[in-house]
Amino acid sequence: MAAVKGEVELARVRYDAATGLVPVVAQDAETGDVLMLAYADREALKRTLATGYAWYYSRSRRAYWRKGATSGNVQRVVEVRVDCDGDAVLYRVVPEGPACHTGEQVCFYRRLVPDGVSSEASKEGGLNPEGAAVRA
Amino acid sequence: MAAVKGEVELARVRYDAATGLVPVVAQDAETGDVLMLAYADREALKRTLATGYAWYYSRSRRAYWRKGATSGNVQRVVEVRVDCDGDAVLYRVVPEGPACHTGEQVCFYRRLVPDGVSSEASKEGGLNPEGAAVRA
Repeated sequence: MAAVKGEVELARVRYDAATGLVPVVAQDAETGDVLMLAYADREALKRTLATGYAWYYSRSRRAYWRKGATSGNVQRVVEVRVDCDGDAVLYRVVPEGPACHTGEQVCFYRRLVPDGVSSEASKEGGLNPEGAAVRA
Repeated sequence: MAAVKGEVELARVRYDAATGLVPVVAQDAETGDVLMLAYADREALKRTLATGYAWYYSRSRRAYWRKGATSGNVQRVVEVRVDCDGDAVLYRVVPEGPACHTGEQVCFYRRLVPDGVSSEASKEGGLNPEGAAVRA
């Protein structure tokens, strides 16, 4: 990963005006894999910085969520970064187990393709709108 | 990056109900660096799939945005992935030039730290809420 140049304090993160949240990208600090995208508010970011483990805010459950609290697949946070305009966050983590509630190592395990070109099998491939919130 | 397992058609992407957008993570396909986070709607994703270059939707300008259209720092898209629940997208790209409008290779070039622990210099380090939309 590109070298760090400077620091930004938590108070300067810019949350979405409507939701109070920022998107958080979790990246495997060792392999570079993009593991998942979730959301955090100020409290979730504060807990992550304080504990060294990845906390998020679940939009569907409206609750704080320590990744792996039920599954055991926690994410130890090596570094937290913020983007140029302060409205997106990157957790660089060492994952213990799969990031995805499906059991896949990463949530981004499928290719996006134009409509009408996919095989029948992929049309049937289920998305999991609720599972992540329930089991991850 | 973890291997692809299956495909998802564009029609099945789940956009935010309020905004019609999905967050898009752009990752350097060669180095694995997370370059930036931006947003796309269905049309932007369609253009990306059709052209092989990264298109986004600018929330501040309310306009489609081909990354690098003015700066020249385009992103050639090697692969587009979608996450398990269909509400986040990953562009794996070969960038021509810096991803960030500040001239940094990646937008995530600063570390997030708790309040009150940062040096004076980092407190002064400007965020750039508008620049990305205007110049990137």
